[in-house]
Amino acid sequence: MPDRRRSWWGWGWEGEGPDRRQKEAIAAGLAARFGLAELAVAEPARLEDLDLPRPRVEPPESISRYCSSGVYERASHSYGKSFRDVVRGFRGQMDHPPDVVAFPADEAELVSVLDWATGAGAAVVPYGGGSSVVGGVECDPGDRYAGVVCVDLGRLDRVLEVDRVSRAARIQGGVLGPSLEEQLRPHGLTLRHFPQSFEFSSLGGWLATRSGGHYATAHTHIDDFVESIRMVTPAGVLESRRLPGSGAGPSPDRLALGSEGTLGVITEAWMRLQDRPRYRSSAGVRFTDYGDAVAATRQVVQAGLRPANCRLLDDAEAALSAGSGGGVHLLVLGFESADHPVDGPMTRAVEICAAHGGQVPDGVRTSGPDQESSEAGRQGAVGAWRNAFIRAPYSRDALVAMSMIVETFETACTWDAFDDLHAGVISTVEKAVREVCGAGTVTCRFTHVYPDGPAPYFSVMGPGRRGSEVSQWDEIKAAAADAVLSHGGTITHHHAVGRDHRPWYDQQRPRLFAEALKAAKSVLDPAGVMNPGVLVDPS
Amino acid sequence: MPDRRRSWWGWGWEGEGPDRRQKEAIAAGLAARFGLAELAVAEPARLEDLDLPRPRVEPPESISRYCSSGVYERASHSYGKSFRDVVRGFRGQMDHPPDVVAFPADEAELVSVLDWATGAGAAVVPYGGGSSVVGGVECDPGDRYAGVVCVDLGRLDRVLEVDRVSRAARIQGGVLGPSLEEQLRPHGLTLRHFPQSFEFSSLGGWLATRSGGHYATAHTHIDDFVESIRMVTPAGVLESRRLPGSGAGPSPDRLALGSEGTLGVITEAWMRLQDRPRYRSSAGVRFTDYGDAVAATRQVVQAGLRPANCRLLDDAEAALSAGSGGGVHLLVLGFESADHPVDGPMTRAVEICAAHGGQVPDGVRTSGPDQESSEAGRQGAVGAWRNAFIRAPYSRDALVAMSMIVETFETACTWDAFDDLHAGVISTVEKAVREVCGAGTVTCRFTHVYPDGPAPYFSVMGPGRRGSEVSQWDEIKAAAADAVLSHGGTITHHHAVGRDHRPWYDQQRPRLFAEALKAAKSVLDPAGVMNPGVLVDPS
Repeated sequence: MPDRRRSWWGWGWEGEGPDRRQKEAIAAGLAARFGLAELAVAEPARLEDLDLPRPRVEPPESISRYCSSGVYERASHSYGKSFRDVVRGFRGQMDHPPDVVAFPADEAELVSVLDWATGAGAAVVPYGGGSSVVGGVECDPGDRYAGVVCVDLGRLDRVLEVDRVSRAARIQGGVLGPSLEEQLRPHGLTLRHFPQSFEFSSLGGWLATRSGGHYATAHTHIDDFVESIRMVTPAGVLESRRLPGSGAGPSPDRLALGSEGTLGVITEAWMRLQDRPRYRSSAGVRFTDYGDAVAATRQVVQAGLRPANCRLLDDAEAALSAGSGGGVHLLVLGFESADHPVDGPMTRAVEICAAHGGQVPDGVRTSGPDQESSEAGRQGAVGAWRNAFIRAPYSRDALVAMSMIVETFETACTWDAFDDLHAGVISTVEKAVREVCGAGTVTCRFTHVYPDGPAPYFSVMGPGRRGSEVSQWDEIKAAAADAVLSHGGTITHHHAVGRDHRPWYDQQRPRLFAEALKAAKSVLDPAGVMNPGVLVDPS
Repeated sequence: MPDRRRSWWGWGWEGEGPDRRQKEAIAAGLAARFGLAELAVAEPARLEDLDLPRPRVEPPESISRYCSSGVYERASHSYGKSFRDVVRGFRGQMDHPPDVVAFPADEAELVSVLDWATGAGAAVVPYGGGSSVVGGVECDPGDRYAGVVCVDLGRLDRVLEVDRVSRAARIQGGVLGPSLEEQLRPHGLTLRHFPQSFEFSSLGGWLATRSGGHYATAHTHIDDFVESIRMVTPAGVLESRRLPGSGAGPSPDRLALGSEGTLGVITEAWMRLQDRPRYRSSAGVRFTDYGDAVAATRQVVQAGLRPANCRLLDDAEAALSAGSGGGVHLLVLGFESADHPVDGPMTRAVEICAAHGGQVPDGVRTSGPDQESSEAGRQGAVGAWRNAFIRAPYSRDALVAMSMIVETFETACTWDAFDDLHAGVISTVEKAVREVCGAGTVTCRFTHVYPDGPAPYFSVMGPGRRGSEVSQWDEIKAAAADAVLSHGGTITHHHAVGRDHRPWYDQQRPRLFAEALKAAKSVLDPAGVMNPGVLVDPS
């Protein structure tokens, strides 16, 4: 048993995040900012007060020893970690708690669970770190299913094999980010995949949702780090050959990547690793004109410089999360290498930015193997941004206690579409926030940048009405998603589809592809028990 | 009409390649090398002597104006360009000529062809540049199909739209490499995808076969350059949204990529482009020990240096194609950029090689925007290699006239598997060549290198027996393919599966994936008319 327990309703470890006094200070600040008389800080529901419905299905004895229908287990597996999840959890509103949570320790136990659930007519929801922000783990069984079995993969948490010469490892799907990196460290290797959810998201979840890492450019999608995947489906095991590259037909791995638990459970993968970086360089570039900042960012990435970090924060976002003054757009630039100094590309990137009016008042920070490896990038505006990035999910739990509406949404589009998408989305969402919240902010940053387009990430904040936060957010989100799609964006760049994005995913993905995917699902999951409601409906 | 006509049996333009006297000189050299009394140079069959069976299907009048059942059209669309194809073409043995060759000028005409063929019960073979070396376009209709309709996409050959700011273009699938680059040049852009078949392969073919470009590392697979794909299937049009990146479910594009004409015809794609390179640096590094050369190559690519060219030629291959002395393994290194000098990474790469005993007797050649852009890399061992690379397909036609067995096969494996794979494949194939040809050579180069493994490419040459060349090669190829698979390689890194690789593809790809793919095919191609025999059999 771990000595700390995860919050059953919020982001992280119980007891982490701002304390009561800190929350009240935050509330006072927000009240002033949004011109409110006061912002009350509520207390979350208590686990012992939850009154969950009786489980509708019960595992046989052979399986029950690694299953639980306890209140903590069911409550803590009811939701992911979207705003609408945390709000409902906070207030103790468990809309669709699973009937049983299974904790298989190996594939044999997993297969037993799948077989039992299929036989019992229950839906199966794979659960990695539970960090979905798109309704990926909340399952309403409706009339079709006898109940819901949540399969927590947390016990499949080991690095099984390391191939130092190829720099790859065979890793179980249930391992969470920190444990994965800890197991790789003795080998001098790292996956270097750091989504914001890193602390509570799993390798299998990253693969199933096509996670985007914290690298801003180039190889950052988990998709590109896969040598092979092993997926246990109701129809059997699908395992691809371990290869650095192949042109033998459509990639089997690419069918599993993004399948969001609808085809099976990813139990293992051979993943490409990297040496730990030893050379680093970082800089915060300030622009007074947003168009200039966008043009500079585009040129940096089109120049093939491949910064590890290349995040453009608009002025409002920069003020909020990096403490920069108003009217300043901040481009957070970072380069790193395990092999060689990275001054060359940084110099060129700063030169490009300067030609677009970008300034580097804090200078460029560089570190090499002889220095404290964590020095560069930990100070100044860059350090402030990084700190806020990692702590953000904990802070949101606190804001939920104040009935604030606080959520993000993200997309990607080609550069030619960006100006219109940005203007259209911001104005649409600002209008929705005004109508729904009276006041609020909409900010934008680039989480990832490609030679052919950015991945803009929008953060929304506004005061909500206690008890109506979910419907308020749903209204804003619908306006945002409509605007994103109509301006040529994708409904999700790295948050996945889940249940929350279904209406827009259905518009975005080609109809014939959906039918092909359903046909593939009917082979791998003939009874249609795997994560129903996500991506496509079973035939 | 083009003013030059393509050879109906061999690689390129009619009349290109070595002339009679050059061929006789080559034959004399090869006879000496393999200890033969003489090596006769035969003449190819004449088109007018071909006696093709009557077409089994005939298009209706509405379609016939863009169809042909002429001898030249049927003969020239009978085969791809593998050794076994060229041998049979050379001798006028047309095993499975298509009944009709259609040349649709737009999607409407293509749809009419698909509709007619489906109704007539004929198989449909999409044909781009016809450069398949795996039996991708040769279709035996067997008992199931009334005949074979070859759909030549050559009239869908335009760049339709250029987006300079995102550096992307909407391009028709039938365009061949040279025309594509010519149309992009006025925009200062390039796809920079240069497979050896560049002159006679098409964008649609590259996409359908997951082609590998000439870049040796990093982004080289055509897969990674796709923003969106438009595919006309018998069930309708499947078109994905144009995006720089997306995490919305399994990628629709990745189902089309590698589908080898079994799901539909790729008519258009939005492709990511690049600025034309202005800075170049190249070097030929010589090693006396192969293990050292492999270790150096691995370290260069694992260091994240991303050379555009990183091809390791073993001593035999280096002697044959780069004219270097015996016992010297040659690593061809090249860097390029449109934005900045590339001396830094080249210096570091040479430093890494030197630490493994690599020497650079010709020095490093560098060019920038002020110099003749083609200078670097055109001289010395590197230039010799490049020249041989481009002319190779023409030379092979000449060798076929001498009944030489001359063919290549390729794979990819992780670094940890490479030493055994290399030794095992070389010894197996050398033994097979000895048994089949009496004498011969087997050489190896890396065409592509990944941080987690190389893509070794093997070339085989030996004297054949006139009339038995195909069965001789088939025997060698079977031994090679068995060895590749048993040592952990893929049956193909970038040549695709086609019909020739089917037995090994069937072993390699996961059984459940094949079933899922068949189910997807049954949706997109319900009558199972698209390129039967390739990848999977229709249900």
